[in-house]
Amino acid sequence: MDISRPRGTRDFLFAEMENRKRVENRLRRTFETYGYHEIKTPIFEELRLFTLKSGEEVVNQIYHFTDKGGRDLALRPELTAPVARLYMNELQRTPRPIKMYYFGSCFRYERPQKGRFRQFWQFGCELIGGRSPLAEAEVITLASHALRDLGLEGFEVHIGHLGILRGVLGHENIQPDLQDRIMGIIDKGDVDELRSCLEGTEISDEARDLLMNLIGTRGGPEVLEDVKGHLTGYDESLAAVREFQELLDVLEDFGMDGYKVNLGIARGLDYYTGTVFEIYVPELGAQRQICGGGTYNLVETFGGESVESTGFAFGFDRLMNALEMDESEMRMVDVFVIPIHESVRSEAVKIAQELRLAGVSADLEAGGRKLRKALSYADHLGAAFTVLAGERDLQEGVVTVRNMEDATQETVKRNEIVDYIKGRC
Amino acid sequence: MDISRPRGTRDFLFAEMENRKRVENRLRRTFETYGYHEIKTPIFEELRLFTLKSGEEVVNQIYHFTDKGGRDLALRPELTAPVARLYMNELQRTPRPIKMYYFGSCFRYERPQKGRFRQFWQFGCELIGGRSPLAEAEVITLASHALRDLGLEGFEVHIGHLGILRGVLGHENIQPDLQDRIMGIIDKGDVDELRSCLEGTEISDEARDLLMNLIGTRGGPEVLEDVKGHLTGYDESLAAVREFQELLDVLEDFGMDGYKVNLGIARGLDYYTGTVFEIYVPELGAQRQICGGGTYNLVETFGGESVESTGFAFGFDRLMNALEMDESEMRMVDVFVIPIHESVRSEAVKIAQELRLAGVSADLEAGGRKLRKALSYADHLGAAFTVLAGERDLQEGVVTVRNMEDATQETVKRNEIVDYIKGRC
Repeated sequence: MDISRPRGTRDFLFAEMENRKRVENRLRRTFETYGYHEIKTPIFEELRLFTLKSGEEVVNQIYHFTDKGGRDLALRPELTAPVARLYMNELQRTPRPIKMYYFGSCFRYERPQKGRFRQFWQFGCELIGGRSPLAEAEVITLASHALRDLGLEGFEVHIGHLGILRGVLGHENIQPDLQDRIMGIIDKGDVDELRSCLEGTEISDEARDLLMNLIGTRGGPEVLEDVKGHLTGYDESLAAVREFQELLDVLEDFGMDGYKVNLGIARGLDYYTGTVFEIYVPELGAQRQICGGGTYNLVETFGGESVESTGFAFGFDRLMNALEMDESEMRMVDVFVIPIHESVRSEAVKIAQELRLAGVSADLEAGGRKLRKALSYADHLGAAFTVLAGERDLQEGVVTVRNMEDATQETVKRNEIVDYIKGRC
Repeated sequence: MDISRPRGTRDFLFAEMENRKRVENRLRRTFETYGYHEIKTPIFEELRLFTLKSGEEVVNQIYHFTDKGGRDLALRPELTAPVARLYMNELQRTPRPIKMYYFGSCFRYERPQKGRFRQFWQFGCELIGGRSPLAEAEVITLASHALRDLGLEGFEVHIGHLGILRGVLGHENIQPDLQDRIMGIIDKGDVDELRSCLEGTEISDEARDLLMNLIGTRGGPEVLEDVKGHLTGYDESLAAVREFQELLDVLEDFGMDGYKVNLGIARGLDYYTGTVFEIYVPELGAQRQICGGGTYNLVETFGGESVESTGFAFGFDRLMNALEMDESEMRMVDVFVIPIHESVRSEAVKIAQELRLAGVSADLEAGGRKLRKALSYADHLGAAFTVLAGERDLQEGVVTVRNMEDATQETVKRNEIVDYIKGRC
């Protein structure tokens, strides 16, 4: 019988896990310096938590099932809605703002392809009840700080504001549902589909050209002046530009520079309201987006009181790809103990245990292999030292410690092994 | 609309997460000193991975569903089978023994009750290709060492050997399927059900009394001598007792003492073959078992070559209950910066950023609240210090730093804030 891993999922082995944990823990530290703390929500939630306000693409790809009690459950496709649910259930009376971060896996039923998996990980945060533009600026700065701290180079922070496009669509009397659809098409970046979709509406030619122009707008903070010039009469869009400018001013206080204004960002999820941002690593090609976030009012959508929330998530798997960490070398143990004769196996066990109890990682040859094979296994484990315990040596109260890097050996007193190793590990 | 958490699941908030991570990381460290390294497998697997050889109770409680491609998938109910699958798929050519540990959530559809959840966590390990009794002794020692290192007191390590009971059942010509059922009943500890089940077989009265007697056997290593006396003629059982005695001898080399021999351990999963062990915390009552493990030959069951594996898993949630960690106090940030006047908000942002870039966790009053309210929020966050930044002070190049513990205040130069705080955090 051959049972394999479900399609689109992965196993993580030692070295890859080690790297992932290193990144995870480094992110935790950065998020905590900004006052965020970790929470965890269940792997599955009620299905309607996600169908209510997530984008169409997300809903089509949800793994859902009915449990034995007839409940419609879903493996979570993202973590913003669960965090909003948690806030509603448990944190409405906690003094605000509330700063949370999470690291967990999400699930999406789609055709597996390079860099896209059916179980994937997100590392993200939510700032609930903050006040913009300060909250937004902080969150964007945190995302950038965390990436710099990981040593990632060449990433691009793009910031936009949905109110500018929505202002134009609203001014042209495009209804909210259709607006959502149009924003979804813009998010996919499909210009042809957008043109044909707009042709089916009563939008004016000027407004259409304006939209296409806005979507293509990229540049430094200065492009907003130019954009304003094209928005005369679109009062809601102009209000959004002013909000956007305030955010850029506060970003300066946060020491953020080098970002790009990008009015083509639409985000795939329907619950974003104003500021949105995405971070790209161009070398990753089609999978270049490693972060997405913005401001939303999800809690109100779920029937809670209106409270502004800002957050983002890193696509952790893509981030790992972008970091290109070395997976070749790994030290499985510091010390490997080899009993040269079967008669000293008990003593070898005791030596290994003394090392372990002293916090030194150690293992021992338990299979009775000959010295050469045991040394080769120790080498496979990447051991820094081997302790060679022979019958006669032990009678004399000594063992041989072999430095695996330079193959030098030293005779060490049996009762000084731990100190000898601890002084060198 | 009211969306709540699915029944039997939990959200983990800040302080609880912090405690769980502390325990998690401490366990990681102990497992690594024994040469184990972490792996991760998917949340769902093919359903048949679990139906093939897991106990009946497990299978009835599996969350399973058909994906859009018609595959029968299951949320994993335990992690031993996935680890065996991973070994088969990816590690068969790796030099052995292979030592792996894992930490992850499992799922079980059962009536939620105190200490039993539908999503629960297991922290465990598998030693694949080791040689018993050394491998078994090491694994049992590791479990005990890890718990002691967590500061857990009053736990009891019980060790048994399935071969003793199975030897009697086999000698009485009980077929393997019925043996599995009987072992399942013994695992549940239901003596009445066991009696009535045995009455339906052709087992002799002596053998039945012997079984009941064995199941109730508890004590130090010395009880094995007594047990042997009752097993005359049951050669397979006697062979198992000899194996068991060898294990106890090696356990002595590992420095393990204080365990109990318990021949009533049967384990709920059908794939165990010989040595089994469980760890109890009596104060936890019905949920007293926090660890279970043993030796099995799961890989062979899945069609791989025969390779001995030994492992165990801690029930992480029960372990957390047993540890009874304090959740009351938590420092969300070291420093909270309060701009006393709106005009110095930019400067407050800069101070917070300087602290964060220096690795000090900091937050600032972003909502424009008055001093008293801001201080109360800082107190809620558990901040060690607040930095009070006033307009006139800043013009003179100073701020006030308030020690939140003793309410003392000091005037500190604006450009020396980071050093001042770092020297005190």
